[in-house]
Amino acid sequence: MSWPELRRPLVQKYGGSSVANAERIRAAARRVARTASSGRSVIVVVSAMGDTTDELIQLAYQVADRPDDREMDLLLSTGETVSATLMAMALHDLHQPAVSLTGAQAGIRSTRVFSRARITDIHPERISTELRHGKVVIVTGFQGVTDDQDVTTLGRGGSDTTAVALACALGAERCDIYTDVKGIYTADPRVVPGARKLASIGYEEMLELAQLGARVMHPRAVELGELYEMPIHVASSFVDEPGTLIQIQRDGDLPMPMEIRKNVRGIAHDLDVARITLVRVPDRPGVAAAIFQPLAQAGISVDTIAQSSGADGTTDLSFTISRGSLERALEITRSISPRIHAASIDTADDLAKVSIVGTGMQSAPGYAARMFGTLADANININIISTSDIRITCVVPRDRAEDAVRVLHAAFELDRED
Amino acid sequence: MSWPELRRPLVQKYGGSSVANAERIRAAARRVARTASSGRSVIVVVSAMGDTTDELIQLAYQVADRPDDREMDLLLSTGETVSATLMAMALHDLHQPAVSLTGAQAGIRSTRVFSRARITDIHPERISTELRHGKVVIVTGFQGVTDDQDVTTLGRGGSDTTAVALACALGAERCDIYTDVKGIYTADPRVVPGARKLASIGYEEMLELAQLGARVMHPRAVELGELYEMPIHVASSFVDEPGTLIQIQRDGDLPMPMEIRKNVRGIAHDLDVARITLVRVPDRPGVAAAIFQPLAQAGISVDTIAQSSGADGTTDLSFTISRGSLERALEITRSISPRIHAASIDTADDLAKVSIVGTGMQSAPGYAARMFGTLADANININIISTSDIRITCVVPRDRAEDAVRVLHAAFELDRED
Repeated sequence: MSWPELRRPLVQKYGGSSVANAERIRAAARRVARTASSGRSVIVVVSAMGDTTDELIQLAYQVADRPDDREMDLLLSTGETVSATLMAMALHDLHQPAVSLTGAQAGIRSTRVFSRARITDIHPERISTELRHGKVVIVTGFQGVTDDQDVTTLGRGGSDTTAVALACALGAERCDIYTDVKGIYTADPRVVPGARKLASIGYEEMLELAQLGARVMHPRAVELGELYEMPIHVASSFVDEPGTLIQIQRDGDLPMPMEIRKNVRGIAHDLDVARITLVRVPDRPGVAAAIFQPLAQAGISVDTIAQSSGADGTTDLSFTISRGSLERALEITRSISPRIHAASIDTADDLAKVSIVGTGMQSAPGYAARMFGTLADANININIISTSDIRITCVVPRDRAEDAVRVLHAAFELDRED
Repeated sequence: MSWPELRRPLVQKYGGSSVANAERIRAAARRVARTASSGRSVIVVVSAMGDTTDELIQLAYQVADRPDDREMDLLLSTGETVSATLMAMALHDLHQPAVSLTGAQAGIRSTRVFSRARITDIHPERISTELRHGKVVIVTGFQGVTDDQDVTTLGRGGSDTTAVALACALGAERCDIYTDVKGIYTADPRVVPGARKLASIGYEEMLELAQLGARVMHPRAVELGELYEMPIHVASSFVDEPGTLIQIQRDGDLPMPMEIRKNVRGIAHDLDVARITLVRVPDRPGVAAAIFQPLAQAGISVDTIAQSSGADGTTDLSFTISRGSLERALEITRSISPRIHAASIDTADDLAKVSIVGTGMQSAPGYAARMFGTLADANININIISTSDIRITCVVPRDRAEDAVRVLHAAFELDRED
């Protein structure tokens, strides 16, 4: 990779597994010190060590049946403070000046929505001052502070979001996300041995992959990167090799011109899928709203929705959810069913999603047909189909999902270099 | 105890053993909720849970040989934040509104001397607002914040100091210190089975006892209480009975007039005593400075000092230190010895201090004589004698120290009620 050698700062984020114990913190510190010794300004964002967050949550449930959100956030924020201070100490031990800052000290302002606050803005004065003094600045991930100085946490994907937000606010050259995988792959390497690590991927493609089960990065941080066009480099903290660069896929910016890029970039799959089907619902306006509003109010995340109109003025309406939500979703659906006159309710909890993702699909026809044909040749039944501009998802039996990933990976020649 | 029923707030401090686990936190929360339910404003100060602080220090030494002071303070401050948030959650569980505040949020400003900061002032606006909203306010002990928002810790006795300082700043009626002992005793109950818990004691007497081995409260917090005349109530968090009230000993304020109070309030002892004697030092000005300045610079705390002038123009100069400091102190003393022409250096590391303490001794003679006579009758040899206005200390052989405490406790009739 050849980034232009600007003197803009770099942001490096280390996840929980990368700072899980003293030894790993020291290893991460060596990597940070190496980058800093080249004269670059470095901002480090850390998660809590290993299972710390889970342990603190357990402790909270030992003192209270329903721990208060505000208190929980302040409690959990201590996890990142511990790893940040240890990282600073480890850097000092390598003779690298460094200082740790809490979310409040780093000026990361957020909404007052405890447990899932959103960053509103960043006041980076303290960070800038410390960088000018030649220090590596370590910022606690996952946390912010309200206008009245209450500590918040940013919810799922919070530390990645902190890192990307800081990179944007400080005009960083790039945001490095160090994690326990080597990058973004064309498919899960545990399922497809020939899966290839992508050198580069677009934000939208990464978003689709992230939402479809490639849990390397939370979609939220990717969206923020896309908004500010901040390059995000996902790599392993355990090996010393380039990972995957998430960046704008423009002509000229890329190692290869877009025209000869493969149109399918990756295959995602998710084994945690259940389905509910309302059978022969009279096809009238307001049916979908009647079902999905109560589900949303109950906090149930509905995934794929597919509706097929029959000839008799009725329709079968199917949607997928995680298996853990099935029971509760079924309860709600049953209570609504009489009002919308569904003939019956059918469920399945042994399903999976398999998706092909790639921006190139927009401009090139035939991808859907090739996907369905490939699955048919492998005798894999398709339950539900759903598509977006850059994605085609098929719901298939769970016990055939990994086969599906393998045959699709081969059919779209993802094992070959771009 | 009959305190005037003013509507001034109460401060309650819970030490590490009182919040060592979820069960104890819930027990402490019940006590707090009971006080709050009477309509009183309550501020709670908590220490870190049990051994948390030691564990964090260990972690620091795993990542760095010499952990940075600033980072160590921020690291250690998380311990109190954890117990404060858990206490708030436990109070919510009892339907008692509560909010936890870090040192920074509570406005506890300190000097920028990491690991042993002093409180400079307290900006209690946030605390007052929360109290007005009917909440119990839980403040993390042991920590402050500098003007530029860096977190400090207050060193030994820090949480007690936080509690007393808050009580003073908020005009509290009283500061309750909940700990694992039931109060201040006339002597260590493990040594003297007949030792009695004192209902009340003066600040100066408490200071002498604290400095002499009764490690219930750090002298620093007692001094602050004395300065602001803040009553401090020391009691056990595990039983429900009055402890000892540290307060001004004035006529009329007390259960009994001063004239008929016992003049000796308690016997303190300390088994961790070593002695260095410089033998036959020529008696010239500057000798004491030549010895004690280098010891102070090396951070060695010198305790009792006694000098006896001989007839031949020389003097024997003895001083005591903790046993752990003996080797280092001896090294320094040896290096100075040639300059001050001491004939030899003598040491002992098998000593103890036994002290009688009481403000009444100031105005009544004969206490020293009775102390020495009692020890002589018990055939206990006295090594060094040192006195203050309200204290007489004898250094005795360690293996006779507990006998000394027992015979003195009996001789001064401390087992009888005032």
